[in-house]
Amino acid sequence: MSSIRSEQMQATDAQLADSAHPLTLASGDKLIDLIIHYETYGRLNDRRDNAIFICHALSGDAHAAGCWPGETRPGWWDSMIGPGKPIDTDRFYVICPNLLGGCQGSTGPSSINPKTGHPFGLDFPLLAMSDFVAVHRRLVAFLGIESLAAVVGGSLGGMQVLQWLLDAPTDMTKAIIIAASSRLTAQNIAFSAVGREAIMRDQGFADGHYLELDQSPDTGLAIARMMAHITYTSEGSLGRKFGRDPQHGDLTPQFGVDFAVESYLQHQAEVFLDRFDALSYLYLSRVMDYFDPFANSEATSQLASHPLPILVCSFTSDWRFSPLHSRRIVAKLEQLELPVSYREIDGGFGHDSFLMDIAPYHLAVAAFLGHIDGNHRGAFQ
Amino acid sequence: MSSIRSEQMQATDAQLADSAHPLTLASGDKLIDLIIHYETYGRLNDRRDNAIFICHALSGDAHAAGCWPGETRPGWWDSMIGPGKPIDTDRFYVICPNLLGGCQGSTGPSSINPKTGHPFGLDFPLLAMSDFVAVHRRLVAFLGIESLAAVVGGSLGGMQVLQWLLDAPTDMTKAIIIAASSRLTAQNIAFSAVGREAIMRDQGFADGHYLELDQSPDTGLAIARMMAHITYTSEGSLGRKFGRDPQHGDLTPQFGVDFAVESYLQHQAEVFLDRFDALSYLYLSRVMDYFDPFANSEATSQLASHPLPILVCSFTSDWRFSPLHSRRIVAKLEQLELPVSYREIDGGFGHDSFLMDIAPYHLAVAAFLGHIDGNHRGAFQ
Repeated sequence: MSSIRSEQMQATDAQLADSAHPLTLASGDKLIDLIIHYETYGRLNDRRDNAIFICHALSGDAHAAGCWPGETRPGWWDSMIGPGKPIDTDRFYVICPNLLGGCQGSTGPSSINPKTGHPFGLDFPLLAMSDFVAVHRRLVAFLGIESLAAVVGGSLGGMQVLQWLLDAPTDMTKAIIIAASSRLTAQNIAFSAVGREAIMRDQGFADGHYLELDQSPDTGLAIARMMAHITYTSEGSLGRKFGRDPQHGDLTPQFGVDFAVESYLQHQAEVFLDRFDALSYLYLSRVMDYFDPFANSEATSQLASHPLPILVCSFTSDWRFSPLHSRRIVAKLEQLELPVSYREIDGGFGHDSFLMDIAPYHLAVAAFLGHIDGNHRGAFQ
Repeated sequence: MSSIRSEQMQATDAQLADSAHPLTLASGDKLIDLIIHYETYGRLNDRRDNAIFICHALSGDAHAAGCWPGETRPGWWDSMIGPGKPIDTDRFYVICPNLLGGCQGSTGPSSINPKTGHPFGLDFPLLAMSDFVAVHRRLVAFLGIESLAAVVGGSLGGMQVLQWLLDAPTDMTKAIIIAASSRLTAQNIAFSAVGREAIMRDQGFADGHYLELDQSPDTGLAIARMMAHITYTSEGSLGRKFGRDPQHGDLTPQFGVDFAVESYLQHQAEVFLDRFDALSYLYLSRVMDYFDPFANSEATSQLASHPLPILVCSFTSDWRFSPLHSRRIVAKLEQLELPVSYREIDGGFGHDSFLMDIAPYHLAVAAFLGHIDGNHRGAFQ
């Protein structure tokens, strides 16, 4: 466990290693030697009731906020989490784990399979959204927290929040579901499937045994990322940022990089290859395809008996999980007579708006969290 | 040259082989031994003034209508072209060539380079929209036609029509531009770029020499096609056709094909690999990226002095070349005081709507062509 205290915030980098209790997954498969890497920001108060749990998205990790010493890349939600920010680390103790199935310190398909001594590869069991929640709950128990002030997530993170609400609503006081979906469309699944095909058809994938062969399906993962990245932006945001601008000087017809947007995509792919694993991409993306919690009519019974305030946010320019997805979640929750607050934000960055510093969005999140337990933020008193 | 006369229509399959006149491209490069494969439907009248020229899209070919003996696949625009159809082969003589740079009989990057005796590969010169038009005009001259009744095309085909209008408006009496663009957006270019990256990063591509090595970048071309195909449909059309339906029985979590939409995409890729060449995909798609005819302020001078009726059509659900692209073309043409008719059609099939039998769309095309030279269609008299 390492810890820093910067001028801005206190952060801790740690892991839960639990070899005593095998985890039984929704599939029936068991995982032993579970390791969950997580970071925390801020301080847990004496009542242990100021914790906010952050669920990350497909390409996220535990590093949600701040910069570690010697690093310049801030956490992926640094605009949202920190002192005086909407998720205010002066008030809240913020927990963010790397997902089960991930590749940034938590057990995943590139971990060593204790049965073989080799990386799991495709022998890693398929995961379900409820498996993420089960692991999150272990971490919360491990940290000695009985009730969370809030659970918050965007995209795949928001889907975890929804599953958690259904599985164990009494774990939390409030919940925030941002730019998420309770049921991917055929188009969503199609984009997801093409990304996985690019990875799995890459010769470097070697049926998932690439780690043992000291190779990797870099082409496939790069293509998957570039394509997905287009779906995370909006036509407007790409247009405003790049238009038809050349990368250098004038356009000079060629098959190489010539338009600035081409260079940008290549850069996105390169950065991603440095920090992400193709197997994790397969496992985490596939969980989203199968997620369909309201298909089970009994899934909502616990939540119906333990209502709590829920904020749902979507962004008008998001065409990956458009506002229609969020409105569907809202409708389902309202059918349970839950106090749902819904904000449809004019964020022009497409799906990635959820990561951006958009004033009405941040205001909505801050206001929603502001009144927890009478512990008001000054600005909203 | 082969010819059939079916119950429905007369069609001819032929080629123009012109080794006497090298073609100088916009790039300055020269192509010798030009071969253009084309089909025709219907009969050229004695006045030779009833010809309609069809320009095909990225993945199209010369086989626009009807079925050849022993084949079951009708031409790609069979809903539009035929006896009694909007482009009525009982009245019109319809010409459709395979594009220069294509792979269905016309000279392209997989043709033999006379200088080396090997396929051109990436030594084939880069093409521009005006090169397509120059070749189309050669074919029209070869057929002894002085003036076309109309030039018609969708998507990349519509872009050729626009370029032809600018380069030689006196060649035609009317023009129809469908689901096209005069200027790709950053998002358009981004999708196009990722498809090409998938092809060029495939080990099977071998820097474009794959034909000599008796291999092919099948993975790359399949991924490019699957991704592009998603952009040709709409979220609604994929949803109506597939939703979250399983391909067989119930959904059974796995990485293989499970959802019906996944099976559909795989099928699209397989069919495409059988009929398309990766190098042609690179060359034809890249022409679209660079197409920006109105960037040259002098480009419109000929058209301004030779105004003619133009029909522009777009489809509300088309998000690849949305109605905004067509409206921009309309505005540019109206600035020249041209008689432009614009139809924005409620076709729910996305970009591919232009290939579909949508009544108001077909009515608009038929009506626009109906009054040429007083040669009215009965239905519209």
